[in-house]
Amino acid sequence: MGRPRTALLDRERITATALDLLDAQGEFSVPQIARRLGVQTGSVYHHVDGRDGIVELVRERIAEAIDTAPLDAGPWDTALAGWARSYRAAFGAHPRAIPLLMANPVRAPRVLEQYERAVALLLDAGFATADVMVVITALENVVLGSALDLAAPQAMWEIADDTATPRLAEALGAVHGSRTDRAFDLALEGMLVAARRMLED
Amino acid sequence: MGRPRTALLDRERITATALDLLDAQGEFSVPQIARRLGVQTGSVYHHVDGRDGIVELVRERIAEAIDTAPLDAGPWDTALAGWARSYRAAFGAHPRAIPLLMANPVRAPRVLEQYERAVALLLDAGFATADVMVVITALENVVLGSALDLAAPQAMWEIADDTATPRLAEALGAVHGSRTDRAFDLALEGMLVAARRMLED
Repeated sequence: MGRPRTALLDRERITATALDLLDAQGEFSVPQIARRLGVQTGSVYHHVDGRDGIVELVRERIAEAIDTAPLDAGPWDTALAGWARSYRAAFGAHPRAIPLLMANPVRAPRVLEQYERAVALLLDAGFATADVMVVITALENVVLGSALDLAAPQAMWEIADDTATPRLAEALGAVHGSRTDRAFDLALEGMLVAARRMLED
Repeated sequence: MGRPRTALLDRERITATALDLLDAQGEFSVPQIARRLGVQTGSVYHHVDGRDGIVELVRERIAEAIDTAPLDAGPWDTALAGWARSYRAAFGAHPRAIPLLMANPVRAPRVLEQYERAVALLLDAGFATADVMVVITALENVVLGSALDLAAPQAMWEIADDTATPRLAEALGAVHGSRTDRAFDLALEGMLVAARRMLED
């Protein structure tokens, strides 16, 4: 009956299908994945640790694209900035997956491992243990807010009547270069300055 | 047949239904809204300017909760910080709506009006016209990244094996106060410092 071979139903396929659904809809269900793969819903559950397990596989897949090499080189702020740039690009490719991933606890071992390296970097740089997750979360605020902005339309504000918002129209007309990239650079630079002050206190 | 009175099908009801669907699913369709309201899909289109019109009604509804009074008082950085705090709370109440709103251009007049006030504040403070939308976007990166974090689980990292990520476990155990709020304060403060430097250049 054209049923795919069982080889199709591995974790790889399940992950790719969940990510496709997230990209298209911002959501996925296990029955939807099963339908796409032409198998019973129960068969999907044989390969993964429940729906949450699929969320973690997706997290791991997206996080694989992050270049972690910067975390091992240079001073902490340069290292953190390099990680942040790559992190933004990886999640910017899947903006609609971001809310689901942020609403679920991180359990994927390879993703926890990235955090371990970022934590070690900051502890070794002299940050107080109590401040480290605050610095990492602030960095993620900037990274993920900007990753969503990467998916925004080129013309983000559409003014029907210039006379109602003349100064907004003027400011929009004056932007040169990439508003999105310049904003990320500004927010990232600021976040690093604020973190540096924490270190000096 | 229990069909609701036409009074039910006003823009108010359509907006509330779209927002409910977004909160639950991160997405809505016009047929879904029609089904929930017990009317034909075509009837919904009589009240709004297409699906995009509904997105703008939702944007306006969420933005109504933002306190814009701070934009009219005090120095620009205090004003911007006050707006940012209220903006974060408004969107933090509807985290799953954020990606859709960021993927659609802003057309709602009352929302454009908020941007007009923020732009005027920054121009009057002396920012270069070309920098104003960069500063506002950087602020939104921080605000919306943090709004998503407000919806994150209390225990965002679940470590099954402490020996694999000992320093992450240590850093998580040491956090005091609200990680989310402290991170937002740090990123916001940093963003304002970076913007202040722009002004001084």
